[in-house]
Amino acid sequence: MTADRSAAPGPVGELGAAAVLRALPAGAVRLGPGFWSARVTANAERSLNAGLERMTEAGTLENLELAAGTRHGAYHGKLPFLDTDVYKWLEAVAWHVQSTGSAEWLEKADEVIALVAAAQQEDGYINSYTTVVRGGERWADLPSGHEMYCAGHLIQAGIAHRRATGRTSLFDIAERFAALLVTQFGEDGEQVGYCGHPEVETALVELYRETGNAAYLRLADRFITLRGSGQMGDRPFGRRYWQDLVPVRELRALHGHAVRALYLATGVTDVYLETGEAALLDVLRAQWEDLLRGKTYITGGTGARHRDEALGDAFELPADEAYTETCAAIALMQWAWRMQLATGESQYADIFERVMYNGFLAGVSLVGDRYFYVNPLQVRSDTTLGPDGRQAWFSCACCPPNVMRTLASLTHYFATSDDDGLQIHQYASGEIRTEWGAGVNVETGYPFDGTVRLAIPPASAGTWTLALRIPAWARGATTVLLNGAPVAGTGNDGTLGADVDYVRLTRTWHAGDVVELDFPLRPRLTVADPRVDDARGCVAIERGPLVYCAEHLDQDSDLRDLMLAGHPWDGAPIEIDGTTLPTVLIDATARSLDTKDPWPYRELGGPDKSAAAGHAAHTRVTAIPYLAWANRTYGAMRVWLPHEEAN
Amino acid sequence: MTADRSAAPGPVGELGAAAVLRALPAGAVRLGPGFWSARVTANAERSLNAGLERMTEAGTLENLELAAGTRHGAYHGKLPFLDTDVYKWLEAVAWHVQSTGSAEWLEKADEVIALVAAAQQEDGYINSYTTVVRGGERWADLPSGHEMYCAGHLIQAGIAHRRATGRTSLFDIAERFAALLVTQFGEDGEQVGYCGHPEVETALVELYRETGNAAYLRLADRFITLRGSGQMGDRPFGRRYWQDLVPVRELRALHGHAVRALYLATGVTDVYLETGEAALLDVLRAQWEDLLRGKTYITGGTGARHRDEALGDAFELPADEAYTETCAAIALMQWAWRMQLATGESQYADIFERVMYNGFLAGVSLVGDRYFYVNPLQVRSDTTLGPDGRQAWFSCACCPPNVMRTLASLTHYFATSDDDGLQIHQYASGEIRTEWGAGVNVETGYPFDGTVRLAIPPASAGTWTLALRIPAWARGATTVLLNGAPVAGTGNDGTLGADVDYVRLTRTWHAGDVVELDFPLRPRLTVADPRVDDARGCVAIERGPLVYCAEHLDQDSDLRDLMLAGHPWDGAPIEIDGTTLPTVLIDATARSLDTKDPWPYRELGGPDKSAAAGHAAHTRVTAIPYLAWANRTYGAMRVWLPHEEAN
Repeated sequence: MTADRSAAPGPVGELGAAAVLRALPAGAVRLGPGFWSARVTANAERSLNAGLERMTEAGTLENLELAAGTRHGAYHGKLPFLDTDVYKWLEAVAWHVQSTGSAEWLEKADEVIALVAAAQQEDGYINSYTTVVRGGERWADLPSGHEMYCAGHLIQAGIAHRRATGRTSLFDIAERFAALLVTQFGEDGEQVGYCGHPEVETALVELYRETGNAAYLRLADRFITLRGSGQMGDRPFGRRYWQDLVPVRELRALHGHAVRALYLATGVTDVYLETGEAALLDVLRAQWEDLLRGKTYITGGTGARHRDEALGDAFELPADEAYTETCAAIALMQWAWRMQLATGESQYADIFERVMYNGFLAGVSLVGDRYFYVNPLQVRSDTTLGPDGRQAWFSCACCPPNVMRTLASLTHYFATSDDDGLQIHQYASGEIRTEWGAGVNVETGYPFDGTVRLAIPPASAGTWTLALRIPAWARGATTVLLNGAPVAGTGNDGTLGADVDYVRLTRTWHAGDVVELDFPLRPRLTVADPRVDDARGCVAIERGPLVYCAEHLDQDSDLRDLMLAGHPWDGAPIEIDGTTLPTVLIDATARSLDTKDPWPYRELGGPDKSAAAGHAAHTRVTAIPYLAWANRTYGAMRVWLPHEEAN
Repeated sequence: MTADRSAAPGPVGELGAAAVLRALPAGAVRLGPGFWSARVTANAERSLNAGLERMTEAGTLENLELAAGTRHGAYHGKLPFLDTDVYKWLEAVAWHVQSTGSAEWLEKADEVIALVAAAQQEDGYINSYTTVVRGGERWADLPSGHEMYCAGHLIQAGIAHRRATGRTSLFDIAERFAALLVTQFGEDGEQVGYCGHPEVETALVELYRETGNAAYLRLADRFITLRGSGQMGDRPFGRRYWQDLVPVRELRALHGHAVRALYLATGVTDVYLETGEAALLDVLRAQWEDLLRGKTYITGGTGARHRDEALGDAFELPADEAYTETCAAIALMQWAWRMQLATGESQYADIFERVMYNGFLAGVSLVGDRYFYVNPLQVRSDTTLGPDGRQAWFSCACCPPNVMRTLASLTHYFATSDDDGLQIHQYASGEIRTEWGAGVNVETGYPFDGTVRLAIPPASAGTWTLALRIPAWARGATTVLLNGAPVAGTGNDGTLGADVDYVRLTRTWHAGDVVELDFPLRPRLTVADPRVDDARGCVAIERGPLVYCAEHLDQDSDLRDLMLAGHPWDGAPIEIDGTTLPTVLIDATARSLDTKDPWPYRELGGPDKSAAAGHAAHTRVTAIPYLAWANRTYGAMRVWLPHEEAN
C-alpha cells in the first residue's frame, strides 16, 4: 500500500485567481456501488490489463527499448506518437493506484516507467519514433512529428503519477523533457515553433500548477500566441486542420481536426485560468457557443468528418458518417471542465454530463475490453464499419488508453468547492469530502433512477452552501426536499423553477441532514434544429442524461421501415454483459415499402407507388441507451428515428 | 483528312445474337447546333488540349519514355495505372478524329502512340509502372497492380483508333498485349487469376467483336467466372470492395467500389450479349434493380462512400458526403447502354439520360477544363472540398480523360436500329442515318425545350418503324403529331398514354414527313423514398431530364435557412460561361434561426426557442441545373431542399 495521497490534486491542480471554482483533491470523491463504480471497476479490472497486453503485442513498449538501445530491430508501427499510448496508460494506472492503493499496479507502472527512463536521452529528450525511425533528427517536422504532443502526454502522466503515488520517477523524466522544451522553444529558445497537434499546452500549465515554475506557463502561453501564424504551411486539409489559420485570440469558431481544436481550447482555458487574460475567455466563450450551436451531436460527440477528422461546417452533423472520435469526446470533457472552473456556469457541466454518458461511454464496451474509434449515430447494416464493430486495439490506438485515464480519474470531475461551500455537478453514489470539512454521502440510482439522496456526515456539520446542479433537461420539473420539507423558493411540493440551474442550500448543516432531489426521469422525444439535415423529420429518444438508440436486434421490423408515433414510455429493463439498463418503448408503424418499380424517387403529390404497394403494420420500437449499443452484436442502429410529428 | 470512317463501329461494335438492338456505326449520328454540340465542342477545343498539357506536366507521358528506356529518371506519380490516362485520352482523340476528320489531331495521336509503342516490350507486355517502379516484375500483385485494367483501356483505345481512323498502329500494340493476356491467363495459360479492378472484361469482348477471335471472349468469360473465388484475399475494405465476395453468376446485388462494380457489370453484360447465357442476364437484372432501388442518387450518381469509394448499403445516399465519382457515372452509362442493347427496355435509356445530364455532366466545367472527381449533392460552405472546387487535373486523374472519351463518342449512345427500323433514345439536334437507309433530321432545344421535330430526309423514304423514347418523367403528358395530326392510339390532341415508353410509328415514310414530339417540360418537385435519410422532408427540383440545385450566390438567404412552399415555375434564363440555362423559381420562407441559446436540440412539442426568437421572411429561391453548379464560384449548394409538404 502506498501512503495516503487523497489530499493531492487530481488531473487539474490548484488553480490561479481567475478560477471561479476549485477542483477537489484526487481522493475527495469516492464511489459507492452504482453505475459509475461498475464502469470504473471494468476499467481497472479489464481495460488496464488488456491495454498492457495490447501494447506488448503491438510492440509499443518494445519501441522504447529500441530507443534505449537495449534492443535492436525494426520499429513497430508507422505513427510518430505511439509513445503516448504508454503515457496515457501510465496515467490511467496512476489514478487507479490513487483510488485503490494497489501495490500490484504501482509495481507494474514502475516496470513500464523503467522502459521510459531508459529511452530518455542525456538532455531530457524522449521520443522513440524520432530516435529509431528518424535517426534522432529532432524538431524537423513540427507539423506532423508530434514530439511536443508526446511530451504533453508524458507530462500529464508524470504529474498524475506523482500526485497519485508521491513518487517522482516518471515526473522527473517528464520535467527534464519539459525543461528541454523551454530551452528549445521558450522566449530565449533556439527555435520559434509549435506542435502540429496541440496537447502540450494544457500539460505545461498543469506542470506550472505542480511546480510553480512560471517558465512552463509562459511556454504554454507562447505556443498559443504563436499559433495561427501559418507556420504549419500549405499542408493537406489546409491550415484549419492544423489549428493554424487564425491566431487564438481572434478565433471565434472552431474548425478543423476536432481533437486538435479541443485540446487547444483546453490549453487556452488553462492559460486563462492562470493568467486571467479576459480576451482569452471572450474567444473561448465564442468558440464554445459556435461549437454547441452547429457542431455538436446530441450525444455530445464532435468531429463530423472522416476525411480530415474535422468538426465540419455548421450543422454538418451526419448520423451515419459521423466521425465523432472517442478522443474528441474526452477532449470536450476536458475543455468543458475547465470552462466550468473558469465560470461556474451550469452549461459546461450539462455538456460534460451529456458527453460522459453518451459520446464518451459508447467508445468502450461494457466489459471494458473493446473500443470504438469512430462513434456513428446510425448504422444501416453490418458492412459500414466492418463486421468487427468494436476493436480490442488500433494501429492508431489513441482512444483506448485515453478512455482508461479518463475513467480512472472520472470522479475528479463530479464536484468542486468555492469559498461558500461544495458544488455537486455530477451525481453518483458515494462519498464526497472536501479538505476543509464540507461533504455529503450520496445514494442514487442515477442515471437510471431520478432520486438522489444526499446525507450530511458528522464531520461536515457547520455552515456552508451545498450547491446541486439541476441538469438542463430537468429544469422546471425537479423537486428538492430538505429533511423531507420543501426549501425556500420552491413550490409546495418542492418543485424548483425552470430558471434554477443550481439549487444552493446555505445553512448550518447537522449530521444526518438529508437533501433529496427528484429528477423527472421520464423518456422524452427530442427534435433538432431544422438545419441539422440528418435529423429532419426525426426524433431522438432521451431519458435523463442518456441518449437512446434503436438496435436492429430488439425490433420486429427493419429499422429503415419505421415511422414512430406518439410518446415513449419505460419498458422492462434489459441486461447486457452484466449491466441492467432501462429500455424505452414507443409505438411505430413499419412500412413495407418494396415495390416492383425500383426507382426510389417520385413526384411530390404524385402516386406513391411504394405506399400503394406496401402496407403499414403496427409495431413497437425498443430503445436502449446509446452507451450500450454494439455490445451484443454489431448491426443496424439509429439514434434519429422518423416520427410522425417531427418536421 | 482521313478516309470516311463513318460506317465503322463506335465504342460498341457488331453484337452477338443475344442483342435485341443494334448499335449504329460511329458516324450515324451527327450533331447540329445545340446543347450537346456545345459540350462536345468544348471537349474537343479545350479538354483534349488541356489534357495533353496536364499529362505532360504530370510526367504521365514521360513515364512511357522511362519504360521504353529512352529517358532516365524517377517515375512520376505513385499510382500503377497512370498509363490509362494516356489510353483514355487517345481514345477521346480517336473519336474526335472520327467525327471531325481532323488531320491535326490524327498527328498528335500518332506522336503519343509512338511513345506507347516504344514502351511495349518484346512479347507485347506494356505497363510503365511495372517496368520502371517494380523492376519489371509482372503479375505479382493482381489485386492492386492494375496491369489488366491498364490493358483494358489500351485495348479500348486501340479499337477506337482503328475504327475511327482505319490505322492499326495503336490497335496492333493493344492486340499484342491482349494475346499475351490469353497466353498468361487463358484456359491453357500459365496463371489462374483476375485483375483487382475490372475493366479488361468489356475491352476483351469488344476486341472479340473487332477481330472475331473467340479467344478474347473466352478470356473475358473466364475472368468473370473466376471472380468471386476469393483470390483477392483478406485485404483492406474486404472482398466486396474487390468484387470478389460472390461469384458473378450468384451476385444479385452490387456492393463495394462503385467503379469496379459497374465496370464488371458492363463486362458481364458484354459477355451476355455475345454468349446469350440466360443466367447472366438474370443476375444482371437483379443487380440493376438493387442498384436503382437504394444505391442511386437522383443525379444518377452512384458510390456513396468516400472511405472505400463504395456503393454503400441500401439507402445510404448522403447528400453532402456523396462520393459519386465521375467515373462511376460513366461506368453506369456504359452498363445501361449494354443493358439497353440486351433488352430494348426503356428503363435503361431513362437512367442513361439521367446520368448523362446530371451525375456525369456535373463532373466537367462548362468551359471544359476543370473537373470534379467527387460530385456531392450538397455543400454547406466553401470549406467542404477545399476552396478550389473543380480541379484541372488530379494525382489520380482517372476522371478527366474518361469524361473526354465519353463526350467524344457520346452520340454513339443516342440511337439504335433493329430489323424493324430506327430507335431514338436521346434527343439532340442533328442528323441520324442508318447504314440501311432509315434516318431522320432532328431539330430541338432539348433538354431545355420540350419540342422535338423529326423530319424524314429523301434518302430515308420507305417502310420502316421509327421508335421514339418517351422519358419516364414525360409519360402520360407527351403529345406526338405526324404531319400535324394525331397518330393512331393517341388522344385527340395527340397525347400518349402513361404506359407508352416508346412511341412506334410504322409506315411508309416519304421525304419531308414530320413527326413532332412535345414533352411536358415544366418544373416539378420530386420526393424520395422515405428510407433516403438525407432527402427526408425535402424535395428536389427537376425539369425535363435535368436535376436542379440551389447555389448560394443566387439566393437572398442562407441556404440552410430555407423552407420551400408551393410549386415551382420557370424563371428567366441565366448565362454561365457562354451557356444559357433555364432557371426555376419557387417560393420559400427564410427562417432566421439564431438564438441566444446555442443548443440545437429541444423537446418535441416543447418551446421552439429558435422559431420564437427568429422570424420567417418570404423569399424566392432560384435554382439552376445541377450540371452547371460550381462554374461561377464554389460554395454552398443543395439539391435536396426542405419543403413544407414533403415528409
